[in-house]
Amino acid sequence: MSATVRYGDPAATLGVLNDVISLQLAHRSVRKFGTRDVTDDELAALVAAAQSAPTSSNLQSWSVVAVRDQDRKTRLAALAANQAFIAQAPLFLVWVADLSRANRLATRAGAEVAATDYLEATLLGVIDAALAAQNAAVAAASLGLGTVFVGAIRNHPEEVAAELRLPPHAMATFGMAVGPPDPTEHAGIKPRLPQAAVLHQERYDADTADAHIAAYDERLTAYNSRYGLPGNWSDRVLARLRGPASMAGRHRLRQTLERLGLPSR
Amino acid sequence: MSATVRYGDPAATLGVLNDVISLQLAHRSVRKFGTRDVTDDELAALVAAAQSAPTSSNLQSWSVVAVRDQDRKTRLAALAANQAFIAQAPLFLVWVADLSRANRLATRAGAEVAATDYLEATLLGVIDAALAAQNAAVAAASLGLGTVFVGAIRNHPEEVAAELRLPPHAMATFGMAVGPPDPTEHAGIKPRLPQAAVLHQERYDADTADAHIAAYDERLTAYNSRYGLPGNWSDRVLARLRGPASMAGRHRLRQTLERLGLPSR
Repeated sequence: MSATVRYGDPAATLGVLNDVISLQLAHRSVRKFGTRDVTDDELAALVAAAQSAPTSSNLQSWSVVAVRDQDRKTRLAALAANQAFIAQAPLFLVWVADLSRANRLATRAGAEVAATDYLEATLLGVIDAALAAQNAAVAAASLGLGTVFVGAIRNHPEEVAAELRLPPHAMATFGMAVGPPDPTEHAGIKPRLPQAAVLHQERYDADTADAHIAAYDERLTAYNSRYGLPGNWSDRVLARLRGPASMAGRHRLRQTLERLGLPSR
Repeated sequence: MSATVRYGDPAATLGVLNDVISLQLAHRSVRKFGTRDVTDDELAALVAAAQSAPTSSNLQSWSVVAVRDQDRKTRLAALAANQAFIAQAPLFLVWVADLSRANRLATRAGAEVAATDYLEATLLGVIDAALAAQNAAVAAASLGLGTVFVGAIRNHPEEVAAELRLPPHAMATFGMAVGPPDPTEHAGIKPRLPQAAVLHQERYDADTADAHIAAYDERLTAYNSRYGLPGNWSDRVLARLRGPASMAGRHRLRQTLERLGLPSR
């Protein structure tokens, strides 16, 4: 895969490239899966890759729940914006920011882990989970498996926690559907912002970076129109972040996490 | 690289393995770097890999600041727990959860992006940044470059924001030192928790998972003693999360982020 497709820009090139980076450049979200299962051996390889990601102070503040049961996948799909591909995927992984393990260690030792009450600890768990999950996604791609991340698992955190019997101090951070890509899926590699819009040298320079957005809006409008989607990138960002009404319930996340034992002090 | 080393367990094996997953299994943090620079072409490849990671609703809510200036690296090292390798690395990347781009779009359009005031938006930016950074870390490894994540960049977020001239609604989430590994570094691949301690089937099962911690404590004690480090894993987790005094200032993160325009409502 070349940078041309990644950026939707015939002029985009890379002076350094290898098989691993090509695999990464070729990423697209897969939302339509073939019928073969993901094997236990494949799942073990994804989790081993996930565990090989960096983790803050080796705390390993994450867990993952592997869901294959059809009824459970269907219920999780209903909780996550009714996205049918969740029920259709052979494997649905729920990545958990997990401060509960440390709390259980503390209970058994008669110790305190008061740090887990702070926003910092929630971020630490979320970052650990994200680094792990992205390693799993790359490993999946290397095995010919498709993935898509599901942020909508945060639409109903308490119901998801109940479905998965998550203990206190744990949060389903995002889901990930995994399976063999169905070759009939009509989907492409979505172009990203020009590199100069996200990469800053020495100091953040908003004017220089944002000067590249207009060209991207044109590229993404052209890309989206191929899939029957209206609007440019800027309009979609503004619509998505307009306010509480555009957040699918996630404007309540802080209060919900407090009830789940992650109070973000 | 085999699972045996990753888990510090002669009995750990994987039924599925390939070059990409082997590269991931071989990850270790590199904190001592050789003298050659990271080239602009290599940096561009890392950022292209980062941009190929999934991003929530294609919002691309992250940016990265590439720091090579020696004085700036030295100042950032001082702000991040005086870790000398930050100043020693040829390249220091600061990964930014960036809701400022959307806020600038809104200002120019006369629109509102009130969603960026919520904890959900902070998490969204942090997750986007983490997925991107992990892809960059894997790309770096594929090019023979070492990396180490630096969470201590969150010890002094306002000073870091000032140093990098970050705009409002942006947060330095973590740093990443990048460079050629110095082969004289005395460091190994740190074993992780047994897979059964983090992977749950269908539902979270704390008792079954935690039953594997005792064996891991023994493995990590043996590993640490090779590097002159005392203590088992459980004790280190409890010490790290004891409370505000063990958080290097990060217990104030929520209040600090509010001042930086990320109020976590």
